[in-house]
Amino acid sequence: MKNKIITISREFGSGGRTIGKEVAEKLGIPCYDGEIIDKVAEESGFSKEYIEQNGEYSAHRTWIGRSLSASSYGATMSNQDAIWVAQRRVILELAEEGPCVIVGRCADVILRDKAELLKVFIHADTAARAKRIVEIYGEREQSPEKRLADKDKRRIAYYRYYTDSEWGVAKNYDVSLNSGKLGIERCVDIIVSLYK
Amino acid sequence: MKNKIITISREFGSGGRTIGKEVAEKLGIPCYDGEIIDKVAEESGFSKEYIEQNGEYSAHRTWIGRSLSASSYGATMSNQDAIWVAQRRVILELAEEGPCVIVGRCADVILRDKAELLKVFIHADTAARAKRIVEIYGEREQSPEKRLADKDKRRIAYYRYYTDSEWGVAKNYDVSLNSGKLGIERCVDIIVSLYK
Repeated sequence: MKNKIITISREFGSGGRTIGKEVAEKLGIPCYDGEIIDKVAEESGFSKEYIEQNGEYSAHRTWIGRSLSASSYGATMSNQDAIWVAQRRVILELAEEGPCVIVGRCADVILRDKAELLKVFIHADTAARAKRIVEIYGEREQSPEKRLADKDKRRIAYYRYYTDSEWGVAKNYDVSLNSGKLGIERCVDIIVSLYK
Repeated sequence: MKNKIITISREFGSGGRTIGKEVAEKLGIPCYDGEIIDKVAEESGFSKEYIEQNGEYSAHRTWIGRSLSASSYGATMSNQDAIWVAQRRVILELAEEGPCVIVGRCADVILRDKAELLKVFIHADTAARAKRIVEIYGEREQSPEKRLADKDKRRIAYYRYYTDSEWGVAKNYDVSLNSGKLGIERCVDIIVSLYK
């Protein structure tokens, strides 16, 4: 019997994490986000910060740099590959445990055929996301728009590299919502009603 | 004061037209779909069948063929361009009249900044759409999968050519729904609740 799992893919700053937590709370099931990083850190030995930086985002590096860095350690895998493997195993284990919400980390693709999925994508326009990341994470040297563009680019590249799928294409999800336009609460209500 | 308008972009066979009609009925507002074709036929002189074939789908032709066919009539526009212009004008006029639902025909892009839009995209996997088009339109010589692939390709090309936007990218809509997975009725309910 496959577990019913909600996967939430989200643009940086769209409130997807908040939506995931609230949905899980209303449904009385766990929401996994930071917990995945803790478990991957335990399994892999990498620090939480390093996993946070490399578990959803392609690094700034060239393909040549990538293969050199792997081979210079005599390894067959880059660090990013090692994190992907550990992260994938953690997600598969969590999905075995029971119904839950999983935020990000390509869980929609990793759990394909492994669970009964409700695949959600949360997005918002740049202005709404820029406002949100300044509220939550504060100002940085880089403008919020630049930070968003950088995160978007690296997340799209990461998703494509490890899943062979296109990020943010409506067909890949059961429901895609513009949280900036609709508001967090309405997104939560729709997802909860679809899960039931 | 801008009118509140629901635009429904949809994959062929996803039930988007049915969803549009039901949403409009529940909200007590008009739904424009075939009516647009009638009006464009009146304005342009093209037959309804010709408009149906060319008002949302790029024709099977090369760019060379296209420019030759335009210039051989001494015209600056192809037939498809003429239909686009008439269709665009009809959609702008309808949007002025009052709140409504408009199915297809790039209305989401045509009405950008012209109305208060709720932009919806309806999709479904190929199996669900193949089943539906056989039920509604009957069997054809071509397999339903082949018919879908052909329609998809031509609609994507049409949309890109006239709007410079990418068809089916979640960010371009406020809500995107998989009608094959969620069912027509749940899609209707979500759209109605978001409009209110």
